[in-house]
Amino acid sequence: MDQPDANKLSINTATLRAQWKLEQIIDGCARHAIRGISPWRDQVQALGLQETARRLRSHDLTVTGYCRGGMFPGATPQDRQERAADNRRAVDEALELNAACLVLVVGGLPAGSKDLAGARQQVRDGLSALLEYARPLGMPLAIEPLHPMYAADRACVNTLAQANTLCDELGDDGLGIAVDLYHTWWDPQFLPEVARAGRQRILAFHICDWLVPTRDLLMDRGMMGDGVIDIRGCRQAVEAQGYRGFHEVEIFSEHNWWKRDPDEVLLTCKARHLEHG
Amino acid sequence: MDQPDANKLSINTATLRAQWKLEQIIDGCARHAIRGISPWRDQVQALGLQETARRLRSHDLTVTGYCRGGMFPGATPQDRQERAADNRRAVDEALELNAACLVLVVGGLPAGSKDLAGARQQVRDGLSALLEYARPLGMPLAIEPLHPMYAADRACVNTLAQANTLCDELGDDGLGIAVDLYHTWWDPQFLPEVARAGRQRILAFHICDWLVPTRDLLMDRGMMGDGVIDIRGCRQAVEAQGYRGFHEVEIFSEHNWWKRDPDEVLLTCKARHLEHG
Repeated sequence: MDQPDANKLSINTATLRAQWKLEQIIDGCARHAIRGISPWRDQVQALGLQETARRLRSHDLTVTGYCRGGMFPGATPQDRQERAADNRRAVDEALELNAACLVLVVGGLPAGSKDLAGARQQVRDGLSALLEYARPLGMPLAIEPLHPMYAADRACVNTLAQANTLCDELGDDGLGIAVDLYHTWWDPQFLPEVARAGRQRILAFHICDWLVPTRDLLMDRGMMGDGVIDIRGCRQAVEAQGYRGFHEVEIFSEHNWWKRDPDEVLLTCKARHLEHG
Repeated sequence: MDQPDANKLSINTATLRAQWKLEQIIDGCARHAIRGISPWRDQVQALGLQETARRLRSHDLTVTGYCRGGMFPGATPQDRQERAADNRRAVDEALELNAACLVLVVGGLPAGSKDLAGARQQVRDGLSALLEYARPLGMPLAIEPLHPMYAADRACVNTLAQANTLCDELGDDGLGIAVDLYHTWWDPQFLPEVARAGRQRILAFHICDWLVPTRDLLMDRGMMGDGVIDIRGCRQAVEAQGYRGFHEVEIFSEHNWWKRDPDEVLLTCKARHLEHG
């Protein structure tokens, strides 16, 4: 089977954040018969946690992930404690929303630090502590390796191999990986590390495209088909491991998709998901 | 010994390309008692190959690398043949300049292609053919892994591990690696892969810094000390393998260093090399 299952499309709400509030995005997904959604914390806070949960339930939307926890490294113990407390609240919110997982962007170097190995150790420690909280509550944590261009300021877990090693070390129970192609498509170890992750660890699968040229490190992601990622081949590799979850579209696009009519964006996501996903 | 050897500083001519012609850069390096230089082909062509060689000799400058060959993948066999011929000319020029190595930026995806594995195979094949030409002439080829953000359009060799594997496969004779910290500092495997490369394979060592934030994917590299790279630690790791070559400064900086007085840039390179290198 070449084409993806149209019912597996999920919209990460960042894709429409410039045009719509969360309530409009939820309605938009329902209107376009999109079955999955992945909301961000700031949007949920604006609408209210209970109200968000109510609206998601009323449209029977699957919450394919909650964005996001993480940011473990901190310059001081107090910084790290505040982040840990905030991450526990994110777990609670994810439970309230019945999310499939809490997505973790693990954080980069603390301000002023050049100690990348130390930051990675802080990630491991912070993740270990959060797991102790999330495991008994039944909320899976999904480590999202971010592209190496974000190693300094967003996430110092930059490869699937690192994420797999964290799962090896901390145990698979309640821990896994969010495979985002924007961050991992270039990785020469993509296929073996997807196989190493296997069905159990792959908790989420995110798609968009890498544009050539890419004009901004953060805000110039492409719609599926407009760039160079072999999205279909990667999706098939993930599903060959037994992954049966959603294909979540997350596009930050300051100069293009965030300026378009949001219904057009959703229609384009649907069409491109079928054509290139 | 903590501080680097001041005599090991080399200037990649891209660092001053906006302000000075090659002849001025050569004179500037001599005037500031900088002993190493790494010129680019377009600049050499503008000055003339023989004239460049004469001026480099007259100032007794060490050519720490010649920038650059590579760009192996092509959409058609004719594309690839033209690139192969151009690479052979680059080897000839490097010999004429008595360069320590020809630096290879291996190229990315051919236009319209999403076949990253295929591009990597084309790199291997093109490199293998160029080695046959360069080996008997005694010009070492240095594979430069580029940051993953350049995987599509500049180089699909993005990790030291890939470069090491190419050396394993094609043989170490006349083949090695240019370790550029801008491209490799984030790599969780940096230390083990530097050790795997060892003294024999490390043919060049390039330094600059990763700025936070980085405002442009190509033209916003930082001066040593202005960013987050632990340049000293990485330099010591490379030299712990027995590397005794130069520390080459290569800074593309459209909005900062390319706008400054070039003598100030060289003075800053010298000071920051000692302080952070």
